[in-house]
Amino acid sequence: VKSARVDLGQRSETVRRANLSAIVRTLHEDGPQSRSDLVARTGLTRSAIRALVGELTSAGLAIEDRAVHLGRPGRPSPEVSLVADAAVAVAFSIGVDSLSVATVGLGGIVLGLARSDRPRGHHAVDAVVGDLAALLDCLPAGRPAEEAVVAVGVAVPGIVRSRDGLVETAPNLGWTGVPLGALLRSRLDWSVPVVVRNEADLGVLAEHRRGAAVGIDDVIYVHGEVGVGGGLLLGGRPISGAAGYAGEIGHFPIAADGLPCRCGASGCWETVIGAGALLQRAGLARDAGAEGVDRVFAAARAGDPLALAAIEATGVQLGVGLGGFINTFNPRLVVLGGLFSRLHPYAQDAIWTSLAHHSMPAARALVRVAPAMLGVDAPLLGAAEVALEPVLADPASRFGTRDAVVELASA
Amino acid sequence: VKSARVDLGQRSETVRRANLSAIVRTLHEDGPQSRSDLVARTGLTRSAIRALVGELTSAGLAIEDRAVHLGRPGRPSPEVSLVADAAVAVAFSIGVDSLSVATVGLGGIVLGLARSDRPRGHHAVDAVVGDLAALLDCLPAGRPAEEAVVAVGVAVPGIVRSRDGLVETAPNLGWTGVPLGALLRSRLDWSVPVVVRNEADLGVLAEHRRGAAVGIDDVIYVHGEVGVGGGLLLGGRPISGAAGYAGEIGHFPIAADGLPCRCGASGCWETVIGAGALLQRAGLARDAGAEGVDRVFAAARAGDPLALAAIEATGVQLGVGLGGFINTFNPRLVVLGGLFSRLHPYAQDAIWTSLAHHSMPAARALVRVAPAMLGVDAPLLGAAEVALEPVLADPASRFGTRDAVVELASA
Repeated sequence: VKSARVDLGQRSETVRRANLSAIVRTLHEDGPQSRSDLVARTGLTRSAIRALVGELTSAGLAIEDRAVHLGRPGRPSPEVSLVADAAVAVAFSIGVDSLSVATVGLGGIVLGLARSDRPRGHHAVDAVVGDLAALLDCLPAGRPAEEAVVAVGVAVPGIVRSRDGLVETAPNLGWTGVPLGALLRSRLDWSVPVVVRNEADLGVLAEHRRGAAVGIDDVIYVHGEVGVGGGLLLGGRPISGAAGYAGEIGHFPIAADGLPCRCGASGCWETVIGAGALLQRAGLARDAGAEGVDRVFAAARAGDPLALAAIEATGVQLGVGLGGFINTFNPRLVVLGGLFSRLHPYAQDAIWTSLAHHSMPAARALVRVAPAMLGVDAPLLGAAEVALEPVLADPASRFGTRDAVVELASA
Repeated sequence: VKSARVDLGQRSETVRRANLSAIVRTLHEDGPQSRSDLVARTGLTRSAIRALVGELTSAGLAIEDRAVHLGRPGRPSPEVSLVADAAVAVAFSIGVDSLSVATVGLGGIVLGLARSDRPRGHHAVDAVVGDLAALLDCLPAGRPAEEAVVAVGVAVPGIVRSRDGLVETAPNLGWTGVPLGALLRSRLDWSVPVVVRNEADLGVLAEHRRGAAVGIDDVIYVHGEVGVGGGLLLGGRPISGAAGYAGEIGHFPIAADGLPCRCGASGCWETVIGAGALLQRAGLARDAGAEGVDRVFAAARAGDPLALAAIEATGVQLGVGLGGFINTFNPRLVVLGGLFSRLHPYAQDAIWTSLAHHSMPAARALVRVAPAMLGVDAPLLGAAEVALEPVLADPASRFGTRDAVVELASA
C-alpha cells in the first residue's frame, strides 16, 4: 500500500522513466509498431513519443525503420522496434527429465536455446548447478557476453521463496531448503541478479504474454506431470502470495479422507489427477513415469478402452477441482499444461460436464478451457520474461551501459 | 493491460491529479498527518505538498490546523485533515435479517447509521428497494443532501455483476437476475452512481482498511452464516474476477460426493461448515436459523458437550478448506467473519490442527488466523469505501462542486 502510494506521487524524472517504460513494454509485448500506434497504446502525446523514441534509439535499445507494408496503400510509416540483443535474459528451466537454457532478447526474441536430457531421479544441487552452467556453452552462439546479460531467470518444479530464490521444497528433485539462487549466482560468477520462480507461475506468465492467454486478464494455469502445479494471473497480474508460494492448487484437499499425498497431507487434488492416478487407472504402476504416460496415450490413440476410460476418469476429477477454482476466481480462461494438455482432446467433454456440475452458472458462463500453446517451453520463456522485467520497468537503467562499453573500447 | 499502460503514459495534468489522489488517499486511510508525514508517505517534494494541500484546502476538501501534541516537546506542526462532509458516501447493506444504511464521509468517518430488523424470508426486490430508500429518513441527521453525496454503495449476500450491479443470484433473498443497481438508482432519484457488490468482497476491503487486516496485503476473508462467502485481497488488491463473481469459496467441492448444495452442485464446503451443518451436528434442524445458532453458542458457553463437539467438528471442516486456500494463495492472514468469528474462540485448536494437516509447511509458517474486527458492519463500511473510491482516485473531480453551490446560493 505504501509503495503504491509512492508510485502515485510522481516527480518529473519518475514520469520520464515511467513513460520510457510504457513504450518499451508495449514494443516488447505487442511487437514493432508505428509512432501513431505508440500514441494510441500509451496515451502519450505525439511530441512526447518522438522525444522518448529518440532517447531509446540513441541509447541503442530501439531502431526506427521504414517498414514495408505489403498490400496497404499509401506511404508506409516508420516502425519502431526493440533491438533484441541490447538487453538479453538468460533463462534456465530445471525439469525432472531435462535441463534447458535460452537466451532471450528484448521483444521476446529467442536468440538461442539448448537442452539436455537427464536420467530421472534425485540430483545433488551442485551437480545440477554445474550442468546448467556448462549448458551455456552448448548455445548455438556460445556463452553470452556478461555485459549483454541483464538477469538470469530460473524455472523450478517446486516451492520457491521469491525474495532470494530459496527452493523450500521440490519433491520430484528431492530438494528441501536449497539456496538455488545464491548457488547459481556464485557458479556463473556474473554480477547480475538471479531470479528463481516456480515453473507454473512462469508458465502462466509466458502463456499470458505470448501464448493461449494473450489479452486475457483472469487466467488459471494448471500444469500436470507427476505433481500438479498452478499459476494464477488475476486482474492482469501474477499472484504470488506473501512469499512466492501461491499457486499450489494441486494440494487442495478435494477428497479430504483420500489417499496420502507426497506433501504429507491426504486427499490432495494431485492424488486423483496427477500422472500416478492416470497410470493406476490405466492398469500401470503409479510410478511408471513419463514412459508409462506415453504408453497410455499411445493406447488411447489406438482406441484402447481401458486407456480411454482412465483418461476420462482423470478428466472428471480435473473438472471437479476446476469447478471450485472457477467459483473462487471467476476466470475467463483455464489453461491446461503438461499432462493435461495431452488429456484435453480425449477428455474435454468429461472435464466440462464435471466442471459444470461444480461451478456456479454466472461464473461458468464466462470461462473457457484451452490447452497451453507454448508446450514444455512455457516455464523457460516465463523465466526470460521475469529476467527482462527490470529493463521493461526502467529502460533508462540500460542507458549508461552502452556508453560505458564504448568508452572502455576507445580507452 | 492496455489501461495499465495508459496509466503509465503520464501527462502533466494527469500527474497533478495523481498527486492530489496520493495525498487524499493517505489522509483517508492513515488519518490526519503533518506535511512532513505527507512528504514521507507520498514521496512528493515539500514544495509540491505545500501547493497541493493548498489546492485541497481552498476546495474545501481538507483543513490545516495547529494540532495539540500532548506530551511531545517542541512546537506542534500543523496537521492536515480531510473534511468529512465534503464528500459523503451513502452505504446500504442488505442482510437476510436486517437492512442498514450509513453515511460515511472522507476519512472513513461514519456520520450516521440506521438499521431495521426484518422478518426472515424471501422479499420482493421492490419492497426491499422501497425500505432502503425509507431508511434514509431514519438517519440521525435525516436524508442527506444530494449535492454532498458522491455515490451509493450496496452490500448484497449474493453474486453480483460489478459492471451494472445486476444480482445474478442471492439464494437467501430468493433473488435471481435482479437489476438492483438500476432499481435503487431510479428509486433514489439521485444522479450519482450506485455501486453494488458482494458483501464478503466488501467485508475484506473494510477489514483491510480499518479492521483486522490493516497493513496486510494477502488476506482471505471467510464469512459464514447460512451461506459461506469469501473475499480475497491479494498483493494489496481486491480480487473480483472477470465479472465480479470471484470469492465464492463456499462452493469449492471439498467433498465431491457429499451433500447436495443450494447452488445445485454437491459436496460444496458450505454444506459442511455453514450454519446448517453446525445446527445438524448440534442436534437441531438444518434450517433452525439465527435463533438456532444462538442456542448452540449459548449451550457451548454453558459447557454443553454436544454443542462444543458440534462447534469443534465444524472447525475441523473449516480447517480442511482453509488448508487448501492457504496452499492456493499463500496469505499472511485468514479473517473469519460472521458465524466463524463466533466459532473461533471455541474451535481455534481444531481449526489449526486440520488446517496444518492440509497446508504445506512453507505457506503455513507465514499465516495467521484471526476473527474479523468490524463485526456485522464490515460489508456496510466496505460499501462506503467503494462509493468513496472515485473521490480518492481523483479528488479534483470535486473541486467544481463547492464553487457551483456557492454560485447558486449567491445568484
